[in-house]
Amino acid sequence: MSAASGRLCVVLVGASNPLNIGAAARAMSNFGFLRLRVVSPYEVAFREARSAVGAASLLANAEEFTKVADAVADCTLVVGTTAVRHRELQHPLRRLEYGARLIRKELATGRVALVFGPEKTGLSNDDLSYCHWLMNIPTREQHISMNLGQAVAVCLYELVRDAKKATSAKKLAKKEQMEKRATAGEVERISDGLLEALHRSGYVKPIAAASTEERVRRMVRRMNLSSRDAELWLGMLRQILWKIKAARD
Amino acid sequence: MSAASGRLCVVLVGASNPLNIGAAARAMSNFGFLRLRVVSPYEVAFREARSAVGAASLLANAEEFTKVADAVADCTLVVGTTAVRHRELQHPLRRLEYGARLIRKELATGRVALVFGPEKTGLSNDDLSYCHWLMNIPTREQHISMNLGQAVAVCLYELVRDAKKATSAKKLAKKEQMEKRATAGEVERISDGLLEALHRSGYVKPIAAASTEERVRRMVRRMNLSSRDAELWLGMLRQILWKIKAARD
Repeated sequence: MSAASGRLCVVLVGASNPLNIGAAARAMSNFGFLRLRVVSPYEVAFREARSAVGAASLLANAEEFTKVADAVADCTLVVGTTAVRHRELQHPLRRLEYGARLIRKELATGRVALVFGPEKTGLSNDDLSYCHWLMNIPTREQHISMNLGQAVAVCLYELVRDAKKATSAKKLAKKEQMEKRATAGEVERISDGLLEALHRSGYVKPIAAASTEERVRRMVRRMNLSSRDAELWLGMLRQILWKIKAARD
Repeated sequence: MSAASGRLCVVLVGASNPLNIGAAARAMSNFGFLRLRVVSPYEVAFREARSAVGAASLLANAEEFTKVADAVADCTLVVGTTAVRHRELQHPLRRLEYGARLIRKELATGRVALVFGPEKTGLSNDDLSYCHWLMNIPTREQHISMNLGQAVAVCLYELVRDAKKATSAKKLAKKEQMEKRATAGEVERISDGLLEALHRSGYVKPIAAASTEERVRRMVRRMNLSSRDAELWLGMLRQILWKIKAARD
């Protein structure tokens, strides 16, 4: 856990489903945020969650509070998450892409609470009154509300995501885009044709048939064929197979 | 569903937990990708998943296949997801930030399959042989493997995320950063002090006490106090309260 990620607290308020608490803990562990605080969870939910895959110690170290105020008291920035868009929100509402930047900045020196509400209702107005601003995930209008564990995963991913890793992609993408690509169906027909030729020609040893086939299929995919080349290949293989069959008979 | 997102197929291979299938479907619906294909799921898992919150029609329209080859046959790009880092991978491995860019480019004209393996084992070598390249989510080394539903959510979020929404954040963040911020505990003490003064001065009507308190707490947070100003405020309120109490007695 880096110093900065150690300063983020994920605060789950009133979570009632142990699977969701466990899922939140697992995502935290995946992305390296290990401080979980729970505010009045259903006792059973919290106890059952302690079996979450790979996140047992994180859950064991989770801190319990009865009030949101106490759970965020040592934080210099408190961010609430919400699915709400159009309700008379009293707070600034920021999209995740933007909000995460502000959180990262604050984490350089301060402590941040990222607060998630109960599954069914979300954060109450009272809960929201402890928040400096709100953040939402850009889901589509017709289905706004996310599962709690998935919302935690997406928010934390945005916090660890590395913009630099994406920018170098442009050139390559352009190059790869220039010609129309073969479909997976065409590629598979080429693999099949080639494999038939290899079988009939005795290249494939029965004892290693499965691994040879896999190797060949991977090789054909690495050829990264354009649609035009795929057609060429299919023609060539058809001819080769015709020849091989003729030789057998 | 935009034309581009309609060209993405999420392919779940051998999923065995109905909750995970349902969670994957829900995240797809949240982010506007409605084409689900399942390859030999456990029959029960698939049937039980059909109750996923908000994603019933998506699940009802899911297509079933018995072979990976058939599920991806009409796609021009097949991307496998994997938690593996160091295994003798036969494929190029790309981080999500970068891979998502390539996928978006391909979706402009082609059809893309995004393939997820079974919960316990991930994609087999045979499954992988149908993929052009692999993509991984930047989880931490000590806990690489994500929950299936969360992995789907994170990948689809990266596909819809809007880089432009993040870039304008820099200036504001800098401004907000210049002074050390008050902690939530300090802010809450100011709210408490102010509320006590308002209660004692008869400003708060008993019948509307809860909503008034909320309103005041939000207002105090909107002041966005620096640590120094918070101290000032606490001193001022202490004095005001002393005066009010003296007046009462």
